[in-house]
Amino acid sequence: MSKEVKSAYYGSFFHAPVYGEFEYLEDALIEVDGDGVIVRVVTGDDPCKSDLLEAYRNRGMLVELGEGRFGLPGFVDIHVHAPQWPQAALALDEPLYLWLEQRTFPLESKFSDMEFARRVYGDLVDALLARGSTTTVYLGSAHLESSIELAAICAEKGQRALVGKTVMDDPAANPEYYRDASPAQAVGDTATLIKEVEAIGRASKQGIWPVITPRFIPSCTDEVLRGLGDLAASTGAYVQTHCNEGQWEHDVVLERFGKTDPYALRDFGLVNERTIMAHCPYVTEKEGEMFAELGVAIAHCPMANSYFSSAVAPVQRFRKQGIHVGLGTDISGGYSPSMYENIRQAVLVSRLLETGVNAMLPPDERGGLGEGTRVSIVESFWLATTGGAEALGLPTGTFEPGRAFDMQVVDTKRPDCDLTGFGVFDAPIDRLARILYLSTPDNVRKVYAQGRLVCDKDAR
Amino acid sequence: MSKEVKSAYYGSFFHAPVYGEFEYLEDALIEVDGDGVIVRVVTGDDPCKSDLLEAYRNRGMLVELGEGRFGLPGFVDIHVHAPQWPQAALALDEPLYLWLEQRTFPLESKFSDMEFARRVYGDLVDALLARGSTTTVYLGSAHLESSIELAAICAEKGQRALVGKTVMDDPAANPEYYRDASPAQAVGDTATLIKEVEAIGRASKQGIWPVITPRFIPSCTDEVLRGLGDLAASTGAYVQTHCNEGQWEHDVVLERFGKTDPYALRDFGLVNERTIMAHCPYVTEKEGEMFAELGVAIAHCPMANSYFSSAVAPVQRFRKQGIHVGLGTDISGGYSPSMYENIRQAVLVSRLLETGVNAMLPPDERGGLGEGTRVSIVESFWLATTGGAEALGLPTGTFEPGRAFDMQVVDTKRPDCDLTGFGVFDAPIDRLARILYLSTPDNVRKVYAQGRLVCDKDAR
Ligand SMILES: [Zn+2]
Ligand SMILES: [Zn+2]
Repeated sequence: MSKEVKSAYYGSFFHAPVYGEFEYLEDALIEVDGDGVIVRVVTGDDPCKSDLLEAYRNRGMLVELGEGRFGLPGFVDIHVHAPQWPQAALALDEPLYLWLEQRTFPLESKFSDMEFARRVYGDLVDALLARGSTTTVYLGSAHLESSIELAAICAEKGQRALVGKTVMDDPAANPEYYRDASPAQAVGDTATLIKEVEAIGRASKQGIWPVITPRFIPSCTDEVLRGLGDLAASTGAYVQTHCNEGQWEHDVVLERFGKTDPYALRDFGLVNERTIMAHCPYVTEKEGEMFAELGVAIAHCPMANSYFSSAVAPVQRFRKQGIHVGLGTDISGGYSPSMYENIRQAVLVSRLLETGVNAMLPPDERGGLGEGTRVSIVESFWLATTGGAEALGLPTGTFEPGRAFDMQVVDTKRPDCDLTGFGVFDAPIDRLARILYLSTPDNVRKVYAQGRLVCDKDAR
Repeated sequence: MSKEVKSAYYGSFFHAPVYGEFEYLEDALIEVDGDGVIVRVVTGDDPCKSDLLEAYRNRGMLVELGEGRFGLPGFVDIHVHAPQWPQAALALDEPLYLWLEQRTFPLESKFSDMEFARRVYGDLVDALLARGSTTTVYLGSAHLESSIELAAICAEKGQRALVGKTVMDDPAANPEYYRDASPAQAVGDTATLIKEVEAIGRASKQGIWPVITPRFIPSCTDEVLRGLGDLAASTGAYVQTHCNEGQWEHDVVLERFGKTDPYALRDFGLVNERTIMAHCPYVTEKEGEMFAELGVAIAHCPMANSYFSSAVAPVQRFRKQGIHVGLGTDISGGYSPSMYENIRQAVLVSRLLETGVNAMLPPDERGGLGEGTRVSIVESFWLATTGGAEALGLPTGTFEPGRAFDMQVVDTKRPDCDLTGFGVFDAPIDRLARILYLSTPDNVRKVYAQGRLVCDKDAR
C-alpha cells in the first residue's frame, strides 16, 4: 500500500546522494506523507507534474518555494558540545588544558542549574535550526537531568537529535566541583539517560536517541570505560567520544595502555557500527582499517583541527578506506554554529593538507599529503548531509523516497546577500557553490524537519 | 584653534591602536567635526562627560549607540578585485590558470559594458559597506571607463576607496579579447585614471585615490612595467600588484629576469612606500628586509593562500621585520566579502602554519614554523583596522583624535545571532571575541565613513 501524500513541495532542490556529485532537481515536486517521510520526487519533466500540482494546490496541500529560492537537505551536525555554547569563540588562543580548566569545566558545571540549562539549550537549538541543521549529535554536560532536558527541548522544537551525558569520572583528571562521583554513578546515570531519552524519542515524530558519551579516555577510569562498553553491548545505543584528536591525547593513552586510542576504545567495547569518533587526525591507516571493518563513523571537525590538533584529518583517506565520515561544528572547539562555515572550512583545510604550509620549503618537503587530498565544495556538501546521515544510519540527508523530509529553503535574493550572480555563471554548480560559500544565516528562510516547519523567518 | 564639534557618539567602543592589544572604551563619547574627523574621545570616567552628553543631547547632536551595541572601527580591506564579484565562490576547485582562462578573463572582459559595470560595482560597494568595510583597495578590470566609474560609485556611496585599472598587456599571456592594446595605451590609460580619480577624490569628503595596478609580472611586458614604474615616480600614486603568490609565478619571474618577483618589481620602480603587495607567502627573509626598508605594505589574503598559494604567508615574520601588513578579502581568490570571515581565517591558517598539517609525521618534521607564528584574534582585528590604515598611510582604523570617524555599530542582540553569551564570560576580551568570531552581516546595523552614515539597516 502506498503512503498517503499529506503535503507537497514545489520548487528547485539541490542534494548529493553520491559522494563527489550533486543533483539539481529543477521545478520538481516532492510528495510527503503524514509521518514526514518523502513518498515520491516528481521531476521537472514528468508528464503528470502539472496535473499533480493543480490537484495539490486545489486541496491546499501545496507549498511553493518561490522564485529565487532553493531547497537543500537539512544539515546533519554530528559533534556539538551543547553546554559549551556560551563559550563559542572564546579563548581559542589558549592551549587545550587551559581552555578546559579555565573555561570549559567551570562553564559546563553550571548546567546543574536547570533554569540556566533551559535558557542556553533553547537558544542553541534555535540557532542551529536557524542555520539549517535539522539533525544534531549533542554531548551534554556531566549532569543527567539537564542532558535529558536537552533531549526534551529538541523534541519540542522538532530537531532530530542524539543526546549524551558526558562521562568524566577520573578524580585525577577532573576538578572536584565537576565530575562524576564514581564509575558506578556515571554508568548508572548513562543507563537512566538511555531509558529516558528513548522514551522522549518514541513520543517524537523526528526521533531522539541517547548516546553513551565518555568525554575521552584521559577523563575516564578503566572501570567506567568498561562499564560504558558493557552498556553499549547490552543496549545497542549510540556511542560518541573524542579519538586521537591531538598529540597529547595520543601519547597519554599510549603510555597508559601500551596501545593507541582506537584500540583502547575498541578493547573497552566502545567501537562498533553505532560509534561516532570525533576528530581523528592522528588515526593511522591501520587504525582506519579497523574502523572501516567495525563500521565506525568519524566526525570531521575542520575548525577544531586548526585550533587543537596541530594537524588536519585526512578525510579523503578515510573515505577511501571505507569509513563513514560526517561533519561536526564541534561547538566550541570550533567557534561557529553554522554548518555552512564548516563546509567551507573543510574545503580550505584540505587544501593546506594537500600542499603543506611553509613556502620556504621545497614543495615536496612541505609535508602535504599531495594529490587526492582535496575535499571539493560538493564533497563537503555531501559530508554535511548524506555523509552525516550514513554516519548515524538515519534516513535523512537527501530528497529520496523513504527519507525524512528535512529541508532548508535558501533565498538567494536577500538584501546585502544576493546570491544570484548578476546572471553570469548561472549553471547549477555555480548556484550551489554560491549558496554554500556565500549564504548567511539570513538567507535560510524556512527549515523543515520530518515534514514539520521548525523555523520560519518569513513569518516574522 | 580647536575644531568645532558637529556630532557626538555615545556608547562603548572597541579598537586596537597597538598590535596585539585592544582597548575597550566603555560608555565613552566621541566628538566629531564637520569634516568627519574625530576631535576628542571623552572616556567613561571623565568628570565632564555628563555635562557634555546633556549639552549635545539638547542641541540634537548626540547619537547614542544603544544597549547591547558596540562601535568598532570600519574595516580596511586592502585587496579586492571588483569585477570578480560575480565570480565569488565559483570554481575554487580549479587550478589558477583554468580559473583565470575560463572564468576571470571572460567575466572581467564584460566590464566594457558600463551598464553591467554599474550594476555589479554598486552591489559590491553596498555589500562591503553592509559588512563594515569603510575603506577598500580595488583592482578594476582592464577598462579605463568602468574603473573610473567604480571610483565615482564609491564617492557617491561614501566609501573611502583606492581604485586601479588592471594592466595586462602581454599578448603572449592574455587573451586577445581582453588585454591592453599596447604598453603605450596601458600607461596612457593609467595616467588618465590617475587624473580622473584624483579629481573624484578631491570632490569627496572621505577621499578616493588612484592606484597604478599591473596585474602581476606574468601578465605584463617589460615595457609596460617600466612605463608604470616611471608613472609611479612622477605621480607618487599608490601601486598595487600581486607578488610571490605561488610557486608558478615565482618560477616564471625568476626564469624571465634571473631574479625574483620582489626584486624585479623594485627594479621596474614599482616598490615604494605607496606600494601594496598582495599575498607574498613566497617572500623570503631577505626580500622582506628590502620591503621593510622601502616601506612596502603586504596585503595578507588568508583565504586565497589556501586556494592558490599552496602555502600560508608568515604574517608574524613580516611584522617582526617591520613590514606594514593589512588584510584583504581578495574577492574572488577568496570567496568572502566579509572582513569578519577573513579575520577568522587569518587566525585559523596561522595555526596550521605554526604546526604543519600532517599528523602522520613527527611534530618537528611537519613543516610548521613553530612558536611565534600564531596570529591571535586581537592581532587579526588590528590587521583589519589599524594595520590596513598604516599600510595605506591613511588616518583611519582607530578611534583617536585626528582620525576619520569610520565606525560600524554591532548589535549583539539580533535574532538568531545573540552575542551576549548568557552573562557568562563577559569580560571585554570575550565580548570582542564573540563579535569578531560570531557576528553575521545582520549584526552590523549602521556604518559610518568619515562621519557620514553610509549604511543603515535599522532604517529599513
Ligand atoms: Zn569535541
Ligand atoms: Zn588578487
